[in-house]
Amino acid sequence: MDTLVTDTLLVTMDPDVPGATGDLGIVDDGAVGWTDGELTYVGPADGVDTGDADRTLDGDGCLTLPGLVNAHVHGHHTVLRGAAQDVPEIEWMTRSLGPISAHATPEDGIVGAKLTAIEALASGTTTVGEYASDVGELVSEVYRPLGLRVVATEMINEVPEDRSDVGPDEPYPFDRDGGEAGLARAEALVAEFDDDPLVEPAYGPQALDMISLDLLETITGRAREEDRTVHMHVAQGDRERRQIAARYGEGETTVGVLDREGLLGDHLLAAHLHGATPAERARLADADVRMVGCPSSITAIDGVVPPVVEYLDHGGVVGIGTDQAPGPGGHDALREARTTAMLAKADRTDPTALDASGVLELLTVGGARALGIADRAGSLSPGKRADVVVCDLERPAIAPTVSEPFHTAIPNLVYGGGSDVVRDVFVDGVQLVSAGGIVGVDVDAVVTEAAERAERVFADAEDDWRAAGSALVDAVDEGRL
Amino acid sequence: MDTLVTDTLLVTMDPDVPGATGDLGIVDDGAVGWTDGELTYVGPADGVDTGDADRTLDGDGCLTLPGLVNAHVHGHHTVLRGAAQDVPEIEWMTRSLGPISAHATPEDGIVGAKLTAIEALASGTTTVGEYASDVGELVSEVYRPLGLRVVATEMINEVPEDRSDVGPDEPYPFDRDGGEAGLARAEALVAEFDDDPLVEPAYGPQALDMISLDLLETITGRAREEDRTVHMHVAQGDRERRQIAARYGEGETTVGVLDREGLLGDHLLAAHLHGATPAERARLADADVRMVGCPSSITAIDGVVPPVVEYLDHGGVVGIGTDQAPGPGGHDALREARTTAMLAKADRTDPTALDASGVLELLTVGGARALGIADRAGSLSPGKRADVVVCDLERPAIAPTVSEPFHTAIPNLVYGGGSDVVRDVFVDGVQLVSAGGIVGVDVDAVVTEAAERAERVFADAEDDWRAAGSALVDAVDEGRL
Repeated sequence: MDTLVTDTLLVTMDPDVPGATGDLGIVDDGAVGWTDGELTYVGPADGVDTGDADRTLDGDGCLTLPGLVNAHVHGHHTVLRGAAQDVPEIEWMTRSLGPISAHATPEDGIVGAKLTAIEALASGTTTVGEYASDVGELVSEVYRPLGLRVVATEMINEVPEDRSDVGPDEPYPFDRDGGEAGLARAEALVAEFDDDPLVEPAYGPQALDMISLDLLETITGRAREEDRTVHMHVAQGDRERRQIAARYGEGETTVGVLDREGLLGDHLLAAHLHGATPAERARLADADVRMVGCPSSITAIDGVVPPVVEYLDHGGVVGIGTDQAPGPGGHDALREARTTAMLAKADRTDPTALDASGVLELLTVGGARALGIADRAGSLSPGKRADVVVCDLERPAIAPTVSEPFHTAIPNLVYGGGSDVVRDVFVDGVQLVSAGGIVGVDVDAVVTEAAERAERVFADAEDDWRAAGSALVDAVDEGRL
Repeated sequence: MDTLVTDTLLVTMDPDVPGATGDLGIVDDGAVGWTDGELTYVGPADGVDTGDADRTLDGDGCLTLPGLVNAHVHGHHTVLRGAAQDVPEIEWMTRSLGPISAHATPEDGIVGAKLTAIEALASGTTTVGEYASDVGELVSEVYRPLGLRVVATEMINEVPEDRSDVGPDEPYPFDRDGGEAGLARAEALVAEFDDDPLVEPAYGPQALDMISLDLLETITGRAREEDRTVHMHVAQGDRERRQIAARYGEGETTVGVLDREGLLGDHLLAAHLHGATPAERARLADADVRMVGCPSSITAIDGVVPPVVEYLDHGGVVGIGTDQAPGPGGHDALREARTTAMLAKADRTDPTALDASGVLELLTVGGARALGIADRAGSLSPGKRADVVVCDLERPAIAPTVSEPFHTAIPNLVYGGGSDVVRDVFVDGVQLVSAGGIVGVDVDAVVTEAAERAERVFADAEDDWRAAGSALVDAVDEGRL
């Protein structure tokens, strides 16, 4: 084998690994090795000969686990970190972020995605569920050169980018040409990347309030035929609810319309779902719709905790995403693990809601299932790809840890961890993070370029942003920022 | 002056600083300087001559702010990080943490407090509100040698340490000798440290269910006479509520009893308050009782968000604390800032609840007022002590930032920051963190010692922990940890 990480506490997320105990497949003194990016050994350290490996990494004092999966990210927005938070939900997109993001160019977005990828990788993320218009550009310019695994979703919608003059109860005007252009981009994405081992293309009809039923049916048909994921924002709050009622009639809901039109099924990955009813969510889980919840983002934008625990209770598949940086700050996967658990406990008034092991499952196997890549990622199982994270348990933020009578490394990583505990990251067997640093990337140069671009975008946007008059404008005028 | 930090974005928290704008006293190109630990210059960089300073630090690309105040910490517990989480509130103290912490020695606690202090400092904390039995030992062995500012609260109670055999509706037996011993320790603390510029002693009657009214009256009288703080857990959940009802009669509450007995007033710092009613909290704020909320800890233990925003609405003074590590993971002040805002938004179903600037106020001026040290800490004001934090805005987790049309550095620090963005920390003018590292401390040695001690404590405690039979024991037996 080319690489072996040994003498490590191994959390495989595969209970069937030899020598592993419990649901999480824990091996106390374990080893994981791979050849050409494929996991060939996962088990006790004393079951493998270090002489068989070209390179051996000492995992003593470390927790080694499958790479984390961030299932829903709009990476380009990171160039606008801090642009839009602490505003009412109804204003967030149209009056707060929108007037600024309208001034960002695709090139600005590429630098934003680079920052996203850097932050994700540094926190142990090996797969990003990127969601963007012209996502192929981000794949080519950012994720592929860096070596991250990416489920690339091409965003398709039929609405104008600037909707600041459309009232909340007035349906957005649809533009079929825009939708067809999106579908064409998705086709090009599939053609370009379908054979790439690190890229999984997906269709991204943005949301039911932003696309016609006709086009959504076309996309769904394609996805079913090609066994491909349709990744869609579903029931994402009050703004969407009012749009659906305005277009389809009072009392109509996103889930109701999708169900009636036969558009539910295991092809669908639904983001958010906080605007659906419990009965609707039960129906979605029953129809094998997968879910991705974005706790930090939705709490920051909507003041609502996504129904992650409820969807698990319904028997549904759930992954977690960080969504966007302008509201909740960024893309640290371990911070999101902690936030997911804390918000779940608060939301359900129950400290037992979503335990540390449960969160770790969502960030690994859960995310891989949600994105439809569990055949290759999400657990350390022989035959899967070598997406591997080594965390230093001797960092003061998560130390000390014990293994008896239980493994405190798991709660410590989930509740105490962040990018500073991540030592090494491998994607598809290739080392992308070493001793906490991103291999071969000039991070300072990316930050400098992002700062220059952000300064220009905010300056260009200032008049529009002021004219849109969100609550943030008032806060600034009152001397709060 | 001895030291000057210049050419920096300065967030002073003092609107009256020359050249500052807004509530937060922001100076875009600012400088802060001090002599013998006292701030002598705070204002525009061009208003001071760098030649006047023995040492000048370049603050370009940095945000410089007052040191953060962590108003409520039981630091010794950090040696048991990961011991108790994801269990029902009623079990947490008596059946989950208690059976393990009973096996920890004072020496174990000192190493735990060292880890706490390291984590706090690295995340920009300059004042810790430490709360412990024999707190003078932690001050002498940990906080004072390290140079942190500490409000040291001596815990006083009249209950036995092991209460695992007392039913939830049976009042704890009181032991007056234990209470008197606690009061004697508090007297010794005052005698030893009252003249220490970095130490502020306080009285810590643990909670109304753990101390007699008689002793609490004695303590309160002393505090009023000496103008000293009484720092007490008040209305901290169901366990306390049942104890108070069992002792004082059905319908009696902590706040009701304290009010009737004349024990409210501006001497009192009340921790938690989630078990009080809104009317009771309004009464406390009206009586000038200060509050400290511990969002991560109380959400982890109780599944409840502390009423921080409500107490602000009542006009009360509020600080924030990280409380304990075994449940919520640790003591990163910037992570707690983010968590405080996120939980407030979720709790109030309102994304505008507690904005980034508001959280930063709680962690600085709010905490200093709560701990009664606003005369010397909490803002960068000439004449106050030089507790100063310099954050690197070019770290990828919080970059990019712009200053027009508003300062995204503030939301980026609150929502995206953590210990990795903290570059330099000064307490009382002395540099304790330089380039992110703790000056003069062998962090690895502390971690190694903590690991050895944790291993011994958990091993010694295993039988008792199993016998107490918390939900965590079941989780472990089911292979979840």
